[in-house]
Amino acid sequence: MKMTVNLKDRSYPILIESDALSHIDTILDVNRKLALIADDAIPKQWIQKIKDQCPNSFVIRFPQGEASKCFLQYENLLKQCIDYDMTRKDAIVAIGGGVTGDLAGFVASSYMRGIDFYNIPTTLLAQVDSSVGGKVAIDVASYKNIVGAFHQPKGVIIDPDVLSTLSQRQIHNGLVEALKTGLIQDEKLVELFEQEPLDIPQIIERSINVKRQVVEQDEKESGLRKILNFGHTIGHAIEGAYGLDTYLHGECVAMGMLFFIEDQPLKERVLSIYKRLDLPKVPDYDIDTLMSYIQHDKKSSAQTVSIVKVRQAGTFEIEEMTYEQIRNVLERGPYEK
Amino acid sequence: MKMTVNLKDRSYPILIESDALSHIDTILDVNRKLALIADDAIPKQWIQKIKDQCPNSFVIRFPQGEASKCFLQYENLLKQCIDYDMTRKDAIVAIGGGVTGDLAGFVASSYMRGIDFYNIPTTLLAQVDSSVGGKVAIDVASYKNIVGAFHQPKGVIIDPDVLSTLSQRQIHNGLVEALKTGLIQDEKLVELFEQEPLDIPQIIERSINVKRQVVEQDEKESGLRKILNFGHTIGHAIEGAYGLDTYLHGECVAMGMLFFIEDQPLKERVLSIYKRLDLPKVPDYDIDTLMSYIQHDKKSSAQTVSIVKVRQAGTFEIEEMTYEQIRNVLERGPYEK
Ligand SMILES: NC(=O)c1ccc[n+]([C@@H]2O[C@H](COP(=O)([O-])OP(=O)(O)OC[C@H]3O[C@@H](n4cnc5c(N)ncnc54)[C@H](O)[C@@H]3O)[C@@H](O)[C@H]2O)c1
Ligand SMILES: NC(=O)c1ccc[n+]([C@@H]2O[C@H](COP(=O)([O-])OP(=O)(O)OC[C@H]3O[C@@H](n4cnc5c(N)ncnc54)[C@H](O)[C@@H]3O)[C@@H](O)[C@H]2O)c1
Ligand SMILES: [Zn+2]
Ligand SMILES: [Zn+2]
Repeated sequence: MKMTVNLKDRSYPILIESDALSHIDTILDVNRKLALIADDAIPKQWIQKIKDQCPNSFVIRFPQGEASKCFLQYENLLKQCIDYDMTRKDAIVAIGGGVTGDLAGFVASSYMRGIDFYNIPTTLLAQVDSSVGGKVAIDVASYKNIVGAFHQPKGVIIDPDVLSTLSQRQIHNGLVEALKTGLIQDEKLVELFEQEPLDIPQIIERSINVKRQVVEQDEKESGLRKILNFGHTIGHAIEGAYGLDTYLHGECVAMGMLFFIEDQPLKERVLSIYKRLDLPKVPDYDIDTLMSYIQHDKKSSAQTVSIVKVRQAGTFEIEEMTYEQIRNVLERGPYEK
Repeated sequence: MKMTVNLKDRSYPILIESDALSHIDTILDVNRKLALIADDAIPKQWIQKIKDQCPNSFVIRFPQGEASKCFLQYENLLKQCIDYDMTRKDAIVAIGGGVTGDLAGFVASSYMRGIDFYNIPTTLLAQVDSSVGGKVAIDVASYKNIVGAFHQPKGVIIDPDVLSTLSQRQIHNGLVEALKTGLIQDEKLVELFEQEPLDIPQIIERSINVKRQVVEQDEKESGLRKILNFGHTIGHAIEGAYGLDTYLHGECVAMGMLFFIEDQPLKERVLSIYKRLDLPKVPDYDIDTLMSYIQHDKKSSAQTVSIVKVRQAGTFEIEEMTYEQIRNVLERGPYEK
């Protein structure tokens, strides 16, 4: 199926389809120079399949992992675009997870002041969330996504078949962001997590459809789009405190959401889904450490943080909370009734 | 006087006025955190005057010169923004010439995916040209402006008084870009160069007014805006071949324009203006060297280059020229009748 993100002159199509990888020319003009950018752990078979359809393309690899969202790789990729004589009419194609999309997208946003960018997400997290919306960025030291741009792709190609090579843990990790989307905006999407077996293509479609609508209403995150940060305030703090070697991003978001699901039956529903997804339990965190990450993350002189809460699946509330109130939430704990 | 660049939600005011520096709060909200960015050769008096009006500001300096439009300084400035805890609501103010504006503007375009940017140009070149239009960038090796963004300022403050500390050579350098603007779009502006004495504030106003209109019609340089490159194809090649230690950018553009002024009386008019501005003569160039820079600069597989020509002051023509035709032009020379 094909969807369109409606953003006036920045509108673009999203193709979601089994074997979409075999006909990428329905979305992108393959008859120009294409830089195919992927980290070094994306299985070669997917890259080759794409390359075979692009006569004038070349592949640029970089080391896998969040650490590659850095100035060094950003500069390295830009220099390779120069070496390959990329022009304003050529395009960059990201093939990979959120790391590849965020990094290659930022390169595309700034090479010659912005060239065409296509995203072919290959992790579930990227397929349900990060590939749509135009947020691209790198990290600086412990500051995530602090340098970047809003650069909408010209098209997104989502092929659920590529998930066949992805580990279960990575799949569950991505599912958390879809569940998050359901919790704030789409009860039916939450119900999909309670069906047997999981209908992943359906989950991708519904999740991207919500993301699309949110982005259409608030492209540059000046309001509504912040709801997508549900679970991320405490989630990011856990990510910072324990590191990505311990927990994946989605796993931390799952933990973070628990603190702000304000209805006990809903929390229990969500906890059974977590069980099904084999998500780790919230560790025995140190409150001061998490608080220091929360304050660091916000980088704001403001004395409050906008917190997204969910009381009923499919709807959200936003509350301005003081740091003191957030500390109380941490003291109460995630499983408290 | 105040002008507005009309770009829908990216519209912004330009204040052009003697002593504008003393009341910057007519253009920018000084009651927030402001990073005042300037190279280390901008006279302290101008920076102090601005800083005195901004209670919550700090000054970041970087080494003067084109070489600072590089990854290293870009990264350095971004890290300082982080260290100073800049948030999405704060702003960056460039105080300086085109180098400062291009570099600080690119920082502003990408810090937290884009924060407010104000430009207070202090060279004539920046006052008549580079401060308006939102093109920001850094260089990579010999590739000028190859990495950057379109990030319109939120306001521009032009105070001709700051030119009192600028050398005559730098002033003449900047005047070339204004003359260029006149030649392609505004005959009256050309005539201003033939009056005694030169009315610099008037020249700034007319030049910026033309630039504003061109940018309004073609913000992202997909068409019309290319006319501002009049003189730049051969100009950049001379700049590349001889280096900025020999000639300034405007001096090279002045040389480059001569090749494409297609009317002898007009060329003679322009040559008398050059004389008045003490501009250097075109050196005895090596054709192959210039050709290699021209092909390098274009970074394009296309076999032609769009060249702007002027036959009558105030109007332009665009011609697609092959490299062979450009070589012929170089063989003919700039002074040939
Ligand atoms: N831009 C946005 O809107 C947005 C939204 C959410 C998250 N993000 C970012 O996304 C990043 C996380 O993304 P991620 O979870 O996809 O991580 P990732 O990109 O690092 O991918 C995880 C791992 O899976 C491997 N991989 C990818 N596809 C594979 C496949 N088909 N088969 C086998 N292995 C494969 C990768 O090589 C990598 O080692 C973070 O940096 C986060 O900030 C961005
Ligand atoms: N963004 C655009 O649209 C655009 C257009 C044209 C040129 N440019 C760029 O502009 C740059 C050239 O700009 P420039 O000519 O202003 O050079 P510049 O910024 O290097 O300034 C020239 C010198 O003058 C000094 N200076 C600045 N103001 C002064 C003052 N008031 N008194 C004394 N000294 C002062 C600076 O310290 C510097 O040493 C190039 O990098 C070019 O690519 C950009
Ligand atoms: Zn997330
Ligand atoms: Zn110029």
